[in-house]
Amino acid sequence: MENFVYNTPTKVYFGRGYEKQVGSIIKEYGFKKIMIQYGKESVKKSGLYDIVINSLNENGIEWVEMGGVEPNPKITFVREAVKLAKQEEVELILAVGGGSALDSCKYTALGAKADCDVWDFSMGKRKPQDALKVACVLTMSAAGSEMSNSAVLTNLELNMKKGCTTEFNRCLFAICNPELTFSVNKYQTACGVVDIMSHTLERYFTDYPDTEPTDSISESILKAVMCAGTIAVENPLDYEARATIMWSSSLSHNGLTGCGRENALPVHQFEHALSGEFDYVAHGAGLAVLFPAWAKWIYKYKPQRFARLARNVFGVNEEDDLKASLLGIEKMSEYFKSIGMPTTLRELNVPKESIERLVELCTYGYTRTVKSYVSMGAKEMKEIFELSY
Amino acid sequence: MENFVYNTPTKVYFGRGYEKQVGSIIKEYGFKKIMIQYGKESVKKSGLYDIVINSLNENGIEWVEMGGVEPNPKITFVREAVKLAKQEEVELILAVGGGSALDSCKYTALGAKADCDVWDFSMGKRKPQDALKVACVLTMSAAGSEMSNSAVLTNLELNMKKGCTTEFNRCLFAICNPELTFSVNKYQTACGVVDIMSHTLERYFTDYPDTEPTDSISESILKAVMCAGTIAVENPLDYEARATIMWSSSLSHNGLTGCGRENALPVHQFEHALSGEFDYVAHGAGLAVLFPAWAKWIYKYKPQRFARLARNVFGVNEEDDLKASLLGIEKMSEYFKSIGMPTTLRELNVPKESIERLVELCTYGYTRTVKSYVSMGAKEMKEIFELSY
Repeated sequence: MENFVYNTPTKVYFGRGYEKQVGSIIKEYGFKKIMIQYGKESVKKSGLYDIVINSLNENGIEWVEMGGVEPNPKITFVREAVKLAKQEEVELILAVGGGSALDSCKYTALGAKADCDVWDFSMGKRKPQDALKVACVLTMSAAGSEMSNSAVLTNLELNMKKGCTTEFNRCLFAICNPELTFSVNKYQTACGVVDIMSHTLERYFTDYPDTEPTDSISESILKAVMCAGTIAVENPLDYEARATIMWSSSLSHNGLTGCGRENALPVHQFEHALSGEFDYVAHGAGLAVLFPAWAKWIYKYKPQRFARLARNVFGVNEEDDLKASLLGIEKMSEYFKSIGMPTTLRELNVPKESIERLVELCTYGYTRTVKSYVSMGAKEMKEIFELSY
Repeated sequence: MENFVYNTPTKVYFGRGYEKQVGSIIKEYGFKKIMIQYGKESVKKSGLYDIVINSLNENGIEWVEMGGVEPNPKITFVREAVKLAKQEEVELILAVGGGSALDSCKYTALGAKADCDVWDFSMGKRKPQDALKVACVLTMSAAGSEMSNSAVLTNLELNMKKGCTTEFNRCLFAICNPELTFSVNKYQTACGVVDIMSHTLERYFTDYPDTEPTDSISESILKAVMCAGTIAVENPLDYEARATIMWSSSLSHNGLTGCGRENALPVHQFEHALSGEFDYVAHGAGLAVLFPAWAKWIYKYKPQRFARLARNVFGVNEEDDLKASLLGIEKMSEYFKSIGMPTTLRELNVPKESIERLVELCTYGYTRTVKSYVSMGAKEMKEIFELSY
């Protein structure tokens, strides 16, 4: 087991009705003025917006708001938010939404305490030294951002999507009511399931020896989320399934599944290039295409590990490790397909000639890009994108 | 899934060598003066004491110390420590040891910020309103106290062992180096394994429907710790086994295995009566005797749950739930025996006539004592103690 630091300070209020307590929770922390960020009008239509605002008002919390966070949130929006946060001297940035709202809020919180442009954090030019506190009322199970230390931002001028990992990105608290995800449609639900699986799988396949209890816990989360994913796609109002997905989402990305291994996400790096270049591609859909391709390329360097996954998670009954690995990867693709996910770049309408550009985006700002069982350069990345076509 | 609040603020530094950084970690938090507590001279013989002191001195941290924390730590010791902590105005209480040192430190931290006697917290007469910060350099895998919100204290005047659960009991940080447990002897290692299993099992058997991913994660932890336990008892220097036990210990008792269920520990309540009355009884040994007795008494009220454990953790292959339950409980006892644990009260030299007194201690200060599938009064408790004889 490799040395690790486990830091999950986020206090999670999980279950029905906690969104009504958001004002009193914030009051308990002693904050007086906050900024709320949310995406589209759906939080208003659902009534969640009113619940949050009423709770803030009842508890005497002042607030300003920035609505309109887009999927794959944009740096232009964050720059505006930073300006407003500084001007209004808010103390906490509250996301009411999913991973995108949280990405935007995390970058806003970093920017509000910095004297540089926030893109410097994405490009590694500057390291965050301070930040406002961030919290959320979660409406989507996917990114695991509610407990993670990561955030990612899209810069359309550069056609780039790049993240920043820092402990300042950990939410102070997260309100997670599975009912708030009832209205997430089938496609987005499935995208979330793939994202959660990918957070777990990518850590599972970092290059370390078997590590218990981490590996078995990861397998447990994978099986639970797959089973619940099938149910939730069929019946969006199934509370238990939504709850299993929501809690698995937090656990898959808060560090637990990387303990004694590593918290690296090689396939996410590929996918950020993809949805950075093609803004309409949903992150989870991109992962559903890219993960099996990455796996098919790399399994031969660690067949015993891929075979373990195949046997313990995908029920593969095959003694030969190489054969078992491939069967497992096939079953994974089949599962993604069964919940309505694409399995090729072609299905995502990505032109084949854009692969060169995707490879370039993958490697931008790095020398040796993708940490895996083998070092991957541009040639290897190209092969993986081609496998996914 | 039941609503829950998940709060694990403890920053865990897990792995080789972190104990050398204790001074710099404390300095980073901004503390200037601390109290150290430890048990017997073993931390001095092992060299750990010197490592900690040197690190504190190098980083300019002032310290006072209280050595001599006993197993099942005593209130008389804590009262002295509280006095010293107040007098010296220390800001942090650092345990260098295992669960006992941590119990003592947690109560000291509560007492140092209170104007009442700490026993009031055990008896529920007062609720903690504030506390000093607590942290630890862990030398034993068992209690899970390094991430838990619980502490327990023995009052020899009253022959009682009673705990206090409060979020103030969560450590600020925990340094967990599995190498520091290499010197724990076979018996104590086995006691630790039973304690860890019991923290997981007791939550697993709280009266709620199946809850994923919590249930599967619990089963993963149980299997991992049982396998590592067998190895560590045979080969105390096996780093991987020691690491698996140590990390499982933290996860079993930090709340993770109770998410969506409940963090109640009914069998611990029995055991605290036992080792409160018989100070020489090791907590884990008491649990090894009492858990299977409790299970044999109660399984008939929830056979499907006991059968699930039997099949998923103990490899029982039996379709009938009642039969599978009993086979599972038998296998559990066999496992305890295989790592050198007692399986009856008789083996612990507990006189049969003391059962009445144990029942009395179990119910003291409570109306309906033990939360389980059925409400348990003195009659039922007596039956369980008799089953364990």
